[in-house]
Amino acid sequence: MRPVAVLGIGQTAVGEHWERSLRDLATQAGLAAMRDAGLEHVQAVYVGNMLSGLLTRQENLGALVADWLGQRPAEAFKVEAACASGAAAFRVAHMAVSSGEVEVALAVGVEKMTDTTSGETTAALATAADADYELVHGVTFVGLNALVMRRYLHEFGWKHTDFAPFSINAHANGARNPNARLQEPISERDYTRARMVCDPINLLDASPIGDGAAAVVLVPAEHVYDRPRARVVVAGSASATDTLAVHDRKDPLFLSAAYQSARKAYAQAGLEPAQIDFFELHDAFSIMSALSLEACGFAERGQGPRLGLEGRIRLQQALPISTQGGLKARGHPVGATGMYQLVEVVQQLRGEAGPNQLDRARVGMAQNIGGSGAMVATHILRVA
Amino acid sequence: MRPVAVLGIGQTAVGEHWERSLRDLATQAGLAAMRDAGLEHVQAVYVGNMLSGLLTRQENLGALVADWLGQRPAEAFKVEAACASGAAAFRVAHMAVSSGEVEVALAVGVEKMTDTTSGETTAALATAADADYELVHGVTFVGLNALVMRRYLHEFGWKHTDFAPFSINAHANGARNPNARLQEPISERDYTRARMVCDPINLLDASPIGDGAAAVVLVPAEHVYDRPRARVVVAGSASATDTLAVHDRKDPLFLSAAYQSARKAYAQAGLEPAQIDFFELHDAFSIMSALSLEACGFAERGQGPRLGLEGRIRLQQALPISTQGGLKARGHPVGATGMYQLVEVVQQLRGEAGPNQLDRARVGMAQNIGGSGAMVATHILRVA
Repeated sequence: MRPVAVLGIGQTAVGEHWERSLRDLATQAGLAAMRDAGLEHVQAVYVGNMLSGLLTRQENLGALVADWLGQRPAEAFKVEAACASGAAAFRVAHMAVSSGEVEVALAVGVEKMTDTTSGETTAALATAADADYELVHGVTFVGLNALVMRRYLHEFGWKHTDFAPFSINAHANGARNPNARLQEPISERDYTRARMVCDPINLLDASPIGDGAAAVVLVPAEHVYDRPRARVVVAGSASATDTLAVHDRKDPLFLSAAYQSARKAYAQAGLEPAQIDFFELHDAFSIMSALSLEACGFAERGQGPRLGLEGRIRLQQALPISTQGGLKARGHPVGATGMYQLVEVVQQLRGEAGPNQLDRARVGMAQNIGGSGAMVATHILRVA
Repeated sequence: MRPVAVLGIGQTAVGEHWERSLRDLATQAGLAAMRDAGLEHVQAVYVGNMLSGLLTRQENLGALVADWLGQRPAEAFKVEAACASGAAAFRVAHMAVSSGEVEVALAVGVEKMTDTTSGETTAALATAADADYELVHGVTFVGLNALVMRRYLHEFGWKHTDFAPFSINAHANGARNPNARLQEPISERDYTRARMVCDPINLLDASPIGDGAAAVVLVPAEHVYDRPRARVVVAGSASATDTLAVHDRKDPLFLSAAYQSARKAYAQAGLEPAQIDFFELHDAFSIMSALSLEACGFAERGQGPRLGLEGRIRLQQALPISTQGGLKARGHPVGATGMYQLVEVVQQLRGEAGPNQLDRARVGMAQNIGGSGAMVATHILRVA
């Protein structure tokens, strides 16, 4: 297995792109990543996407995107793992290059969610849960997360407002990211007074959906060691699974797939949590920030909110998270989200994160969660 | 890149399994493959599937299948490439093992198509074509293939009945395969009198949809060299793409992605077409049999039907095809089809093909086509 590096990155802004189709978004991000890498050709195109069949009536998306990128006859197909589709596509691209089967791989995450009614989009998102044992009862995705958050508050004695720092931090960073869907800072007062969505999850606990695409070009690491700028290598790449249905878990308050994939990524990288400089976590809902921090060894069980309350998650502090706004403010175009996280890690490692640039950014981690913790992919990237 | 072998195979019969769910089918085939390999655990589960979101309202299928197989926390996600989803999942499993990232990978192809109305299923299948430039005109998938067949008859001067041998051969073999959906032989008279579906494609030119699942266990080749029975290695594994829309091609009568992927697989295997003992091709429609034979170098341009008319495609002849019935008779549960083809190649190489066993079966090829030739994966397997 040969080491792999990220040679190029690209992204569109996250938003309501009613003027752009699914294929346009994927092409824009893919071409940006290729331009950034200084390449006109790739051998493979792996597309992370969840909802193209349900919301755009388009499958066979890999071949379509490869064609619109001008990359025929490159190998191409779609990779789906609900909200973790982006990182799953990165996993495939990583294996393609690490195996030696592919020299230059493009991984694109793309989602188009705002051309349909919110009812259609909500129903489509619910397919990430168990159709026969969860959806059949009419539960939505936010409903499942609300059950988990309610239980967490009860078990560990936190108040709802203790989660405010996660959302405030994400919005503060998103306000300085031109690609973020929500670019307004919020106050604790805003958070506590936000409209309830699904008790105890209110509007400022939840990430917004959106249209968007992000992409990376992966190559063998040996090709980047002598570059001044793009010396970003993949130190750890792993994914793991848990039950699809939340009620099937012995402990619904512990993300075992997050734990397993992080443990594997740490081992591959030869690193411990304390050596991670920053963490792009999957803050689809604020409860997920706490659970992710705990599963990855950054906080004790039930103590995730403490990192926010102590201010340790902010830029330049002990463990900055959601440095470009996270899912909460940058936005959550589901199949693209994992790729946005990885692009943002690369931006930090290269010193190209603009107003959100961290002083210390040598090792970054990204974690992408599909379903309510059913499939989790964890990546550790570092400067070579 | 280390060589990869197929240690286990499993399949369900193809049919209308109204008593079995999507997850049941995938689990049955996956467990059969693991039992065949003598293994209780795998490290990764890659699920080839096209329609679970549209027809079963279930995404995140990888995590679901991994759980039902008892394989948590194995890495798992879904791979989609329309009707080539099965072979695309095999591609991912191959890269996972060849890279050294995974020691034991399970690839499962599964589809559930008969619990919905034929209208719903037809509309869902049409998502394999270009939504914006083909579907918008109301064309169906069989409609696109009918246009191609009509043009082929015109360009090369064949009559419709010249395609009869493809269907007769497939049905003859399917009649002896207990897992085939259609187990009745047909005559030339049956073929010529079959009900028209979409002129010139009649019912006996077209493959039946179905519910079904097939699976393989892949391991490093070094693990199988000393086995008496399961010494089947992957000699070539490649896929390639063409335009999604048929009208975008300079030559709609040449499957360039089939040509490209076959060329690559031949080069990897160090083989030429004449050295292939048998060929599981993608006979979704009889016209596709001709085009696939031509693209892979078994027939000159426009001469594909000749192989059928000369009897060379039958068992024990020069190039047996569809040896267990092909898509035409075994059936075409779309996301599973590519995996059925690979399982059938392994059956032949092991000498386990029952009444359809070939005398000479040392090198077998499988070709899986997604969309109207937009994504094509070609695999060459041989006895080690």
